[in-house]
Amino acid sequence: MPPDATATKKRLLTAAYHEFAQFGLAGARVDRIAEAAQANKRLIYVHFGNKDDLFDLVVANSLEDLAQAVPFTADDLPGYAGSLFDYLLDHPQVLRLTGWSQLERPDAPPAQVEAYRPKIGAISSAQQQDLVTTEVTPADVLALLLGLTTAWANASPALRSLADQPPWDPERLRIHRAAMTAAVRALTTPPSTSGDENTARPPTALTP
Amino acid sequence: MPPDATATKKRLLTAAYHEFAQFGLAGARVDRIAEAAQANKRLIYVHFGNKDDLFDLVVANSLEDLAQAVPFTADDLPGYAGSLFDYLLDHPQVLRLTGWSQLERPDAPPAQVEAYRPKIGAISSAQQQDLVTTEVTPADVLALLLGLTTAWANASPALRSLADQPPWDPERLRIHRAAMTAAVRALTTPPSTSGDENTARPPTALTP
Repeated sequence: MPPDATATKKRLLTAAYHEFAQFGLAGARVDRIAEAAQANKRLIYVHFGNKDDLFDLVVANSLEDLAQAVPFTADDLPGYAGSLFDYLLDHPQVLRLTGWSQLERPDAPPAQVEAYRPKIGAISSAQQQDLVTTEVTPADVLALLLGLTTAWANASPALRSLADQPPWDPERLRIHRAAMTAAVRALTTPPSTSGDENTARPPTALTP
Repeated sequence: MPPDATATKKRLLTAAYHEFAQFGLAGARVDRIAEAAQANKRLIYVHFGNKDDLFDLVVANSLEDLAQAVPFTADDLPGYAGSLFDYLLDHPQVLRLTGWSQLERPDAPPAQVEAYRPKIGAISSAQQQDLVTTEVTPADVLALLLGLTTAWANASPALRSLADQPPWDPERLRIHRAAMTAAVRALTTPPSTSGDENTARPPTALTP
């Protein structure tokens, strides 16, 4: 390989990340990616295969970066949801990429299945230790947690515009984040830790 | 207008609904819509304006159909979430359309803002009657409820594949729906109706 192949690949991946996040798989243009990376278009095919392959790689890399930055803590799912919320706010491209992927690549790549499997296992272990409710299956816990975590970003702009503050105002995000992590707590806390079989609420020192 | 103009418009809208749900705004082809509707492509421009206008109309119509089919019940938000879940399962195109719209039409059309406004008002009234918790703002209640309702459909296929049953198996959906509506109940029930303590209230920090 020529000495600058690594640098060129890196530039191409960065350009592809922005192009795919903006335009999706069908809408992305390989020419624009090559131009933004100041590289020959042919090098995309040499290094990464076709456009679909490059898209899948970009999505997989972005999810791997996310997993590195936000460790999964099955024993503190509200904390995980809060950290994930913060990360996704700072990296709006990640939700755009997964959104396009959902619409344009509906089959589950085996690598992604393997990425989810340890999380399901960790939730299952946390359930056995009575740290997470057993009333909800691990897959449902994780799906509902992710639904809550991405609710504000995925809400219609029309709905977001009806909050008391501008949708991306820090105070607005603080209020939403607190409601969201409380909802994750209510969803995941075992009823038995409260001494009340019906409650979804953890015990609080203030309860009279 | 020629006598069959209404029938032609209806066929064009149906064809556009399926084309946009499948391919999104950028990916849709006006030629394919005209062909599927057995109509002249020129009639699309005559009746509906450009492709963006047609897309916005199709999304707005599909949300109006949904609102007609699933009345908003602020005094029974878990029931609303369950009915909405059922409707979206039966009409997967609606979530695809809103997904594309989110990615490709990021600005809130004023008509959609007006469609959300009464829901926010109804939640606010329900809060005043102590039917919904006041600890979460109306916009956050609705956004988090929608996040929960769409969590399974929006989950990664990789995550869905790790449930104990096939993702769209009736038993799987029944289990998920029960967990989802319970989470909406925990999110929305006022702490004061604590006959059953089934609340979403977060643990209050004890500040000295």
